[in-house]
Amino acid sequence: MEAQIQDVSGNSEDRRRLIEALHAVIPARALLVREEERRPYECDGLTAYRRLPMLVALPETVEQVQAVMRVCHAHRVPVVARGAGTGLSGGALPHAEGVLLSLAKFNRILKIDTLARTAQVQPGVRNLAISEAARPHGLYYAPDPSSQIACSIGGNVAENAGGVHCLKYGLTVHNVLRLEVVTVEGERITLGGDALDAPGYDLLALMHGSEGMLGVIVEITVRLLPVPERAQVVMAGFDDVAIAGAAVGAIIAAGIVPAGLEMMDSFAISAAEDFVHAGYPRDAAAILLCELDGTNEEVSDQLLQIHDLLGKAGATSLRTAQDEAERQRMWHGRKAAFPAVGRLSPDYYCMDGTIPRSRLPEVLDGIAALSREYGLRVANVFHAGDGNLHPLILYDANVPGELDRTEEFGGRILELCVAVGGTVTGEHGVGVEKINQMCVQFGSAELTQFHAVKAAFDEAGLLNPGKAVPTLQRCAEFGAMHVHGGALAFPELERF
Amino acid sequence: MEAQIQDVSGNSEDRRRLIEALHAVIPARALLVREEERRPYECDGLTAYRRLPMLVALPETVEQVQAVMRVCHAHRVPVVARGAGTGLSGGALPHAEGVLLSLAKFNRILKIDTLARTAQVQPGVRNLAISEAARPHGLYYAPDPSSQIACSIGGNVAENAGGVHCLKYGLTVHNVLRLEVVTVEGERITLGGDALDAPGYDLLALMHGSEGMLGVIVEITVRLLPVPERAQVVMAGFDDVAIAGAAVGAIIAAGIVPAGLEMMDSFAISAAEDFVHAGYPRDAAAILLCELDGTNEEVSDQLLQIHDLLGKAGATSLRTAQDEAERQRMWHGRKAAFPAVGRLSPDYYCMDGTIPRSRLPEVLDGIAALSREYGLRVANVFHAGDGNLHPLILYDANVPGELDRTEEFGGRILELCVAVGGTVTGEHGVGVEKINQMCVQFGSAELTQFHAVKAAFDEAGLLNPGKAVPTLQRCAEFGAMHVHGGALAFPELERF
Repeated sequence: MEAQIQDVSGNSEDRRRLIEALHAVIPARALLVREEERRPYECDGLTAYRRLPMLVALPETVEQVQAVMRVCHAHRVPVVARGAGTGLSGGALPHAEGVLLSLAKFNRILKIDTLARTAQVQPGVRNLAISEAARPHGLYYAPDPSSQIACSIGGNVAENAGGVHCLKYGLTVHNVLRLEVVTVEGERITLGGDALDAPGYDLLALMHGSEGMLGVIVEITVRLLPVPERAQVVMAGFDDVAIAGAAVGAIIAAGIVPAGLEMMDSFAISAAEDFVHAGYPRDAAAILLCELDGTNEEVSDQLLQIHDLLGKAGATSLRTAQDEAERQRMWHGRKAAFPAVGRLSPDYYCMDGTIPRSRLPEVLDGIAALSREYGLRVANVFHAGDGNLHPLILYDANVPGELDRTEEFGGRILELCVAVGGTVTGEHGVGVEKINQMCVQFGSAELTQFHAVKAAFDEAGLLNPGKAVPTLQRCAEFGAMHVHGGALAFPELERF
Repeated sequence: MEAQIQDVSGNSEDRRRLIEALHAVIPARALLVREEERRPYECDGLTAYRRLPMLVALPETVEQVQAVMRVCHAHRVPVVARGAGTGLSGGALPHAEGVLLSLAKFNRILKIDTLARTAQVQPGVRNLAISEAARPHGLYYAPDPSSQIACSIGGNVAENAGGVHCLKYGLTVHNVLRLEVVTVEGERITLGGDALDAPGYDLLALMHGSEGMLGVIVEITVRLLPVPERAQVVMAGFDDVAIAGAAVGAIIAAGIVPAGLEMMDSFAISAAEDFVHAGYPRDAAAILLCELDGTNEEVSDQLLQIHDLLGKAGATSLRTAQDEAERQRMWHGRKAAFPAVGRLSPDYYCMDGTIPRSRLPEVLDGIAALSREYGLRVANVFHAGDGNLHPLILYDANVPGELDRTEEFGGRILELCVAVGGTVTGEHGVGVEKINQMCVQFGSAELTQFHAVKAAFDEAGLLNPGKAVPTLQRCAEFGAMHVHGGALAFPELERF
């Protein structure tokens, strides 16, 4: 099938005319035409889905982005924007008859304003690079997805990325003040501003998490925060996951907002311990990692409180990192949990659902029951404070039918999240991966409104078509298929 | 002119048919037809603008709201939704040939979930009533506009209201999890959910501050917070407004996020002191009120830090409230500042602009210069931490030309805010009051996108027409008029 697409996209007259038109507005080096040059762009972090783009454009200026959009709009060619390609839901999966618009050349930090505490950056700048640049001024950028060493800030906006720190410091949308966006017609618009709460409709928030469906982000002004005087982490072990879940509630109820509050179950603990020797208690059914930050005094006070709270909440072990090296080690274990679990299985599938914090114990029970039903192992790692779950399903793609079963299992977990009042994605986005689960999450009235908003930005549907918001027809079909048990999001795609 | 409108709306055949259709779907008591019944709805808190609605509907159930919307949509009749009518920008100013849809009957708190820490409420519930109902559970609702005793939560969402506490706890949009909305066609849709960060376009955020232009809010789920163990306020006097402004920056730079950080200038200080005897230093050029909340220990630590910081920042006097009564008194002075200033003048006009915090001194200088230019006194009261200014212009509507001069002066202040990277409204909204200043804030590309989004919700433009977002034509005309110096937003309206 991939080969067929090649035949069509490789030789058509339309494609030749498009290449000609693009060559007129961007340098030759900024347009990748040959298959071997396009191949690296065939997937993002969701590598199970791959598709070769018809062309790859690598514009170098905002004016070039505008020109590319104008050409594509005139030629009615789909455009898929791409940052670092670390997304986990296939949001940057190319369109076979479209242009993959890479923002990789937009990698400059334009300005750091230490007085206003903002950084004005291009979309291809890596998340961590912002904090690195701000560090000499005693500042940092708070949202910290696990991929922060590689992921781009433009992609963070498109997916409204979270991270360990978002419990206290908010999601990407809470840390961005202004966006410069190029519309599908090549117009440049400014959303938000340097002061809080711009008037007019809140298109700044709307753009966050819109997964490249509404416009191409070409510049971002983020808020910076002062690096806290002190950060400290407490690790608590529990002999029951439900008790650990209740402890999370007790911390929040006490009015403490930790800088991070993460939970790992025994499977994830063992995997991480084997991999990076983080010093986790192997006999615990679950651990909580609770980070406190602020002034010296604040952190000291909160440490006393947290120890007291966790003890009363039934922790069987409690340990405060004795120095920065131990603190880093504890976090390293958490951040390495995904690859650590990955070592135990040929393949794993990382889910991303969000539930009301109070429903944690029953959802964990439900996941365990599904794990038995499908005969597939699951490790649970999550941003407990936010109720954002990351169950990792272990499978072997070489066993016939196991990927299908894994995807069905994953779908059932997300439906369980929706059933308790949660959502099908916390921070990884919908992309192609969860397009069917959106039919479970939303009714036709909401979907219709989504499509109307999409049309207000992109009437012809050229921006990242087929992602994030399913058509009503797809949902009708999914509902029908669903009765007979599970279905691939994009059965027409080549899978690896 | 008002009389003319009466003639038209009072007797037309269209009106008679609309009344008939509405009587078929809502009880007779829910439709106000006679002029004396409609008169109380002719204005909101911006009383300088008044207009009698053709009809007033007071539906009692969501189904009735849906039915009213369906009827109005079928008859192509404009609908203006109204909460408590405390808005300060004329957002609920009626349409002379439209239905004023009052949500006053939607005044029930449906559920308080102490575990999830949420309250599910109807839109007509008063802001303060939510905190009162949550208080027995040790919880409260954080956003606290000055009008919180009277304003409704539905109006808070429509205007994205702020308040003293929004520096630490965010605007309304940061404290709402879910909305039930009735569309212009009478469809009911759910935006957001009980968990964080719903997938799909962020229509929940989009609805905030949309001023009744996109739908009618019929139910709201808000986040509740634990009542802090302790709250304490520090008052600092300064002999220079610019030094007080710099102190605000120093506090934020130290990584302290006060629960509230308010500034008043000498005029506002004297007025408040005369009115409520708050204990303010009459000889100060400015005071800062800095509220700290949290656990006992946190507040104690922060008090030490704040005293130290304010001393170093040049405060000439420092006082911590000695007991709860003194704390209440200090805040009472701030909250009574508007009426206190109002006692000194037949009329006053409250402005609402937001600027980057760092530009405070130069904007205050600019306002003082404009005050001299227009020969009108100004008192400055503001949410200093957010950079949200509330200059109060004192005038006498009985002096010919003084209201015009006041409005022109106000417009110049807002343009000054925009010039330093700020916005024309912090928390009061655009409504009819600032519709022309929106032409200064936004270019035609942004306005075009706003109109497209509006059309995605309300193609016929029936929801609150003429508010919040100016037409491109109005901006073209405003630009032309502006050259010749100022103009009323709605010169065609009757003014009082």
